[in-house]
Amino acid sequence: MSAGEQHGGRVTIRQVAVHAGVSEAAVSYALNGRPGVSEQTRARVLAAARELGWAPNIAARSLGTARANAVGMVLVRPPRVMVVDSFFTQMLSGVEAELNRAEVALVLHLVDAFEQTIDVYRRWYAGRAVDGVILTDLRHDDPRPAALRDIGLPGALIGGGPDDFDLCGLSSVDADVAGTARGILGYLRALRHRDVARVAGPADLLHTAQRDAAYAAAADDLGDLRYRVVHTNYSAADGMRATRELLSTAGPPTALVFDNDVMAAAALRVAHEMGLAVPADFSVVAWDDSDLCQITVPEITAMVQTPALQAELTARALLRALAGGEPTHVVLPAGTLTARGSTRPPKRLG
Amino acid sequence: MSAGEQHGGRVTIRQVAVHAGVSEAAVSYALNGRPGVSEQTRARVLAAARELGWAPNIAARSLGTARANAVGMVLVRPPRVMVVDSFFTQMLSGVEAELNRAEVALVLHLVDAFEQTIDVYRRWYAGRAVDGVILTDLRHDDPRPAALRDIGLPGALIGGGPDDFDLCGLSSVDADVAGTARGILGYLRALRHRDVARVAGPADLLHTAQRDAAYAAAADDLGDLRYRVVHTNYSAADGMRATRELLSTAGPPTALVFDNDVMAAAALRVAHEMGLAVPADFSVVAWDDSDLCQITVPEITAMVQTPALQAELTARALLRALAGGEPTHVVLPAGTLTARGSTRPPKRLG
Repeated sequence: MSAGEQHGGRVTIRQVAVHAGVSEAAVSYALNGRPGVSEQTRARVLAAARELGWAPNIAARSLGTARANAVGMVLVRPPRVMVVDSFFTQMLSGVEAELNRAEVALVLHLVDAFEQTIDVYRRWYAGRAVDGVILTDLRHDDPRPAALRDIGLPGALIGGGPDDFDLCGLSSVDADVAGTARGILGYLRALRHRDVARVAGPADLLHTAQRDAAYAAAADDLGDLRYRVVHTNYSAADGMRATRELLSTAGPPTALVFDNDVMAAAALRVAHEMGLAVPADFSVVAWDDSDLCQITVPEITAMVQTPALQAELTARALLRALAGGEPTHVVLPAGTLTARGSTRPPKRLG
Repeated sequence: MSAGEQHGGRVTIRQVAVHAGVSEAAVSYALNGRPGVSEQTRARVLAAARELGWAPNIAARSLGTARANAVGMVLVRPPRVMVVDSFFTQMLSGVEAELNRAEVALVLHLVDAFEQTIDVYRRWYAGRAVDGVILTDLRHDDPRPAALRDIGLPGALIGGGPDDFDLCGLSSVDADVAGTARGILGYLRALRHRDVARVAGPADLLHTAQRDAAYAAAADDLGDLRYRVVHTNYSAADGMRATRELLSTAGPPTALVFDNDVMAAAALRVAHEMGLAVPADFSVVAWDDSDLCQITVPEITAMVQTPALQAELTARALLRALAGGEPTHVVLPAGTLTARGSTRPPKRLG
């Protein structure tokens, strides 16, 4: 049978199988991008499908599968694109690592406002565009988990929320926020710092609230440690504003901890601008490590976290749920402190 | 007709239209995510489709449309995730800005090796997963344009190639590389620099070759300017290696220009390590501007480029081609030099 004879007709899986010289099951595996056939067979099937003008909607019907073989992520475009955003690229890389192995596509959608997210979920569900979604950056009273449950779209969460937050059946992979906060404050206290200020992320994100609680509890446990916090929008400019404010108080802190690497690096510039030296006048610690922490002078003490692994495990939890598994909740080990030149005991002791 | 009565049956567009109380055309527009219906109608149609258990493959057949309403991008995962990659997030943001307006989805796929890219294109085409692709980072003898033509998948290119490179029918949106190189070298020559070295990107990328040619031509035009180049893999570590090499030569350059912002920032660290001062001992210019250039001490003189706009126009060119238009080739204006503290006339004149 030649390709020409097919024009205008409905091409069946059986015709593709005959043309490629393989079983119908092999065609199904190959066309749905599932493992179970060799790359050689897959190539032969795809070539046959193309020659015959096979269209996937017909095949999907024949096979009785409504799988999109795709996972979606809706991201909120920040007011200004976060230009130095290491977390984002690492997260994407981790999600793709897992989806690639399963030959599942990633559909990305950026929205201008958080409120548009659920509309996209509804459209995706109605159009069977994705089989499930990965979400991140939970907010206070976040409507997404409940909306996903109502829509009937499975989901998994990069990160977590407070223990009493109802995830509505989502899987989650969280970092050990409490352990990381304890690690940072414990190290600074061991250096004999007793006055630590935190330049934090946006107050409306639940992971900021998680860190707020974790740092406060760790400071309480240490007993004789003064701890204060200023919230920012995560940008270099807002981090510099907060750093200036903290350093301009009567009795400034002897150590500053930052919720991301960019603000920590920007603090070194503020020190220079104010005629202060790091670590002589104050110590600096970043919550996340990155290349940036290693090109500054001094290099920045940071917690080594594993955002790519976190994202990869989240994608795996979603695929497991799509295959009929129960929701899972994983907590990764706490970050590992890498001490560099930005931390040392304070000048003013006791 | 109640939702319950539909179970087990094939739901038609007509049934959805009756249930939603709208025309079949409105259902088609709404379910395919195309403009032409109000948000209210769209919501009603989607609700009706969901209630009736409509599946898109059936609808697509009924409507005779094979459109995926999606655009794909295959990205090559770098050996190590580029942690500070401002170009990537800006590019993605620009592509999405245009696709969102047209309600077209973006399907992302990361591969471990460049060679796997064309397999993904073939699979996408066979499965009608995307209507076209956006590509970037052309290489020497890049097989992708010809492969896309052979496969029959429309494409558009962020960036460009040499004038004699056969784009095989792809649209392209390029920066004015020659103008940008002239702008940088012209400014340094006006400051009376006569010995400029460039820390360049990877030699296997065509855009690096474009810049190689543009810088060489600009240096030639200026006549009495010594110009040399060292290629890197774009990472901070490799940029520092190249910077050390150049500053360790007998007769080091008085100005260094960098193909990205990260390597320019890392050069400030090398200066510190070698007991040199910027700009007293050498000037620094970055090809791309970013937040990073504004948090270093000194701030880094940089070309303000428009990668988000470039990506947005590329997506637009692709959508135009998908609607039956001819391939287009756009060249954006050259970057605008923003002079900051990292540049000044050299100590050793003449």
